[in-house]
Amino acid sequence: MTRSPEMASMASDAEYAERLRRVRASMERRSLSALVVTDPANLFYLTGYNAWSFYTPQCLVLPADGPPTLFARAMDAAGARHTCNLLDEHIVGYPETLVHRPDIHPFGWITETARARGVLPAGPDAVIGAECDSHFFSARAYVSLVEGLDGARVVDSGELVNWVRLVKSEHEIAQLRIAGQIAEATMQAALESVWPGRRQCDVAGDIVAAQARGTAEHGGDYPAIPPMLPTGAAAGTPHLTWSEQPFVSGEATTIELAGAFGRYHAPLARTIHLGDPPPLLTDTANAVDEALAAGCEAIKPGVVVADVHASVNDILNRQGLVKESRIGYSIGIGYPPDWGERTVSLRAGDPTVLEAGMAFHVILGIWMDGWGYELSEPIVVSGDGVEHLTDLPHELTVRK
Amino acid sequence: MTRSPEMASMASDAEYAERLRRVRASMERRSLSALVVTDPANLFYLTGYNAWSFYTPQCLVLPADGPPTLFARAMDAAGARHTCNLLDEHIVGYPETLVHRPDIHPFGWITETARARGVLPAGPDAVIGAECDSHFFSARAYVSLVEGLDGARVVDSGELVNWVRLVKSEHEIAQLRIAGQIAEATMQAALESVWPGRRQCDVAGDIVAAQARGTAEHGGDYPAIPPMLPTGAAAGTPHLTWSEQPFVSGEATTIELAGAFGRYHAPLARTIHLGDPPPLLTDTANAVDEALAAGCEAIKPGVVVADVHASVNDILNRQGLVKESRIGYSIGIGYPPDWGERTVSLRAGDPTVLEAGMAFHVILGIWMDGWGYELSEPIVVSGDGVEHLTDLPHELTVRK
Repeated sequence: MTRSPEMASMASDAEYAERLRRVRASMERRSLSALVVTDPANLFYLTGYNAWSFYTPQCLVLPADGPPTLFARAMDAAGARHTCNLLDEHIVGYPETLVHRPDIHPFGWITETARARGVLPAGPDAVIGAECDSHFFSARAYVSLVEGLDGARVVDSGELVNWVRLVKSEHEIAQLRIAGQIAEATMQAALESVWPGRRQCDVAGDIVAAQARGTAEHGGDYPAIPPMLPTGAAAGTPHLTWSEQPFVSGEATTIELAGAFGRYHAPLARTIHLGDPPPLLTDTANAVDEALAAGCEAIKPGVVVADVHASVNDILNRQGLVKESRIGYSIGIGYPPDWGERTVSLRAGDPTVLEAGMAFHVILGIWMDGWGYELSEPIVVSGDGVEHLTDLPHELTVRK
Repeated sequence: MTRSPEMASMASDAEYAERLRRVRASMERRSLSALVVTDPANLFYLTGYNAWSFYTPQCLVLPADGPPTLFARAMDAAGARHTCNLLDEHIVGYPETLVHRPDIHPFGWITETARARGVLPAGPDAVIGAECDSHFFSARAYVSLVEGLDGARVVDSGELVNWVRLVKSEHEIAQLRIAGQIAEATMQAALESVWPGRRQCDVAGDIVAAQARGTAEHGGDYPAIPPMLPTGAAAGTPHLTWSEQPFVSGEATTIELAGAFGRYHAPLARTIHLGDPPPLLTDTANAVDEALAAGCEAIKPGVVVADVHASVNDILNRQGLVKESRIGYSIGIGYPPDWGERTVSLRAGDPTVLEAGMAFHVILGIWMDGWGYELSEPIVVSGDGVEHLTDLPHELTVRK
C-alpha cells in the first residue's frame, strides 16, 4: 500500500479495524463463513478503495477469519494500490480478456481464484453471504458465484454492511460537516444562477462546477446523483435532470443536489419561483417549512423513526397536504446511482430507534399534478437532538 | 403521453417502431415469449424514457406481441409520462411502500402485475429473457422474477438490445455529432484549465461546467462517467477521479471525459504535461499518435475488429510498447456507470465485422508503473472509412 495525498480523508487504521469487527460480528450472528461485498460504498467503507471501476465486476471477499481480499480488473487492481488500506498481496487483478465477454463472466474467475487462495470456503458446510440487491452485483455474477462454490450455500446478506454504516464515527461526521459546507455553497450558487431566459443547462453548469470546486479549504467530490432541477409542469415529478430550455417567468423550479466530500454526501433541496408565486405555492411553502421544523424537532435519540414521519404529517394534514412516501433516508457514503444508504427510511412502519451518530436527509417533496415543492435538511442525530449540516433559509426563493 | 420541450431530441415514432421491430426479430430468433429490459440505456433506446430513477427497480416488459409496458416506482411513473413515447396506460407505478424494504422486492409486485395484465406470459411453455448482466437488475430482482413466473423459464438474454443498438440511425449519428462538439469544447476548456498550483478539483469544476453547458446551440447532458484526471504517479492507473491536491510542474495528467447530448456520448482523452516532458513521454506520445492514426486508417466497413487491434499493435510494438487490453469499444447511449455499449471491443479475438453506422471510442491508454499516457478519438464508421466526431490536435500538450 502506498497512500497517496488524495487519501488524506481516509479513516485511521484503528477505525477500519473497528468497522471490520462490527461487520464480522454481524456475519457471526448470521453464521456466515464469508461475505462477498460488491456495493462500492461498502468497499470504500471497509478498505478506502475509491475508483470509478464498478462498471466492471469487483468485490471484497471477507472471510470470517483472516484478511479480506479485493478482486478487480487488472488495470484497476493497480489503482487500488493507490486508494485502499489493503496490503498489495491482498489485491488481485483478473485478466483483461474477461471484460465484457458474452460467454464468460469475471465472477467465475474470481470465485475460482478466491477458493484457490483459501479466502472463500466452498463445499456443503460453507454459507456465503452475497449482497444480492447491490447495484453492481448482477444476476449473471450471482449465478457465476453460486455455480463456482461447489455446493456451498449462498444467502442474501441483505444490506448487512449498510446497516453497520448507519451510526457514524466522529471521523465520518467530520466528513459530513464538510460535505454540508459544500452543499450550502452549491445551493447558494444554484439559487443565484436561476433567471428568466437562462438555459437550464447553464444553471446546471454552475451547480456542478460549485460541487466539484467545493470550498477554499476542501475540494468537492463528484456527487452520486447529478443535480435535479425539474421546472414548470415537470416539477410535479422528481428525478428529472435538466434540459436546454430557458427558465421562464411564472414557473417554479425545485433544485435537489448534494455536496460531496471524500464520498460523503450532504443532500439539499430548495425551491425557487420566478415572478409572483401563486398563493397555493406560498401556502405549501409555509406548511412544508413548519412540517420540516416539526420533523427536526422530533428527531432525537430514543425516538422511533415512524413517529418522526407522523409528526411531519400532523402538520401537513392540517394544511390539506399528505406525505405518504418517506420524508427522508439515511445518508453517508454514496456512489452512483444513489446517495442514500438503503437502510432506514423515515416513514410509517419503520421501527428503527434513533441513535446519536445516525445521519439523515430529511426531505419534504410535494409532487402534484403540474407543480411541485421541495425543502430539505441534511442532519446528524446528536446527543440531545439534531445537528444541522447546512444553514440556509427555508423560505421559497422568489425572483422578480 | 405529453411530450415536453426537453424531448426535442427524441427519435421519430417510425424510428421507435423500427427499433422495436429489430429487437423483436432478435427475440424471435431466440424463441423468447417476452423480454424484461432493465438497462436504462435500453429503456431510453426503446421508449425515450429518461430519468434518474434507475436506483430503484424499473423495467420495460416487452412481450413478443403487443405494446410494451413500463414499470417504475409510482413517483417515477408520473415522470415517465413526460419523457417517453408510451401511452399513459402502458406506464405502471408500483407502490412507494415497496421501496428499500428488506423483506420484499418490487420485482415481485412487477412480475405479478405484469402477469395479471397479460404482458408477461407464465407457465412451463413461456421463455422469458432477462438482461442478467444489466447493472440495475440485481440478483434479488432476478430471484423475485424467477419465483413469480410459475414455472416459466428465465434465460439470460445477454446484451440483446445492446447489440441492436450497435448500428446507428441517421438520427443517432446526428446526436453523436453534437456530443462530439461538446466533447471538443470541453477538452479545450480542460487543457486550458490545468496549471501548476491549481487544485485538481478546480479543474474538474471547469470540466463539468463545460460538459453541462454544451455549446451555444445545444445544451450538454450529464455524462455517464465523471471526468478522470489522474496525475503524476496516479496517471499510471485509469479510473481515478480527482483530488483537492494542486497540479505540480514536472508531472503529466491524463484527461478522459465525454461530451453528452440527449444521452449520446462522445468520449475523448488527451494528456498534458506541466514543464519539460521527459523523452520517454514524448516518444510514447509520438508512437501512440502514429498507432491511433493506423487504427483509424484500418477502420472501414467489412474489416474485422481484431485486425484493427493488430494494426495498432504493429505500430506500438515497433516502439517497444504493447497494448494487450482493448483499444476501444462501441459507444452511443450511456448512463452511469458506463458510456460504452458493452458489445464490441476493439481487441484481439473479437470477430465483429465493421459496418457503416457503428460508433466507437478508439482509445490508446498506456498505463505504466508511475506514469501514463492517453489519446483517443470518438468515431463513426462511414461508407468508406471513418467520420471523426471531434477535431483536436493529437499531440501531448506541454505547458511551461
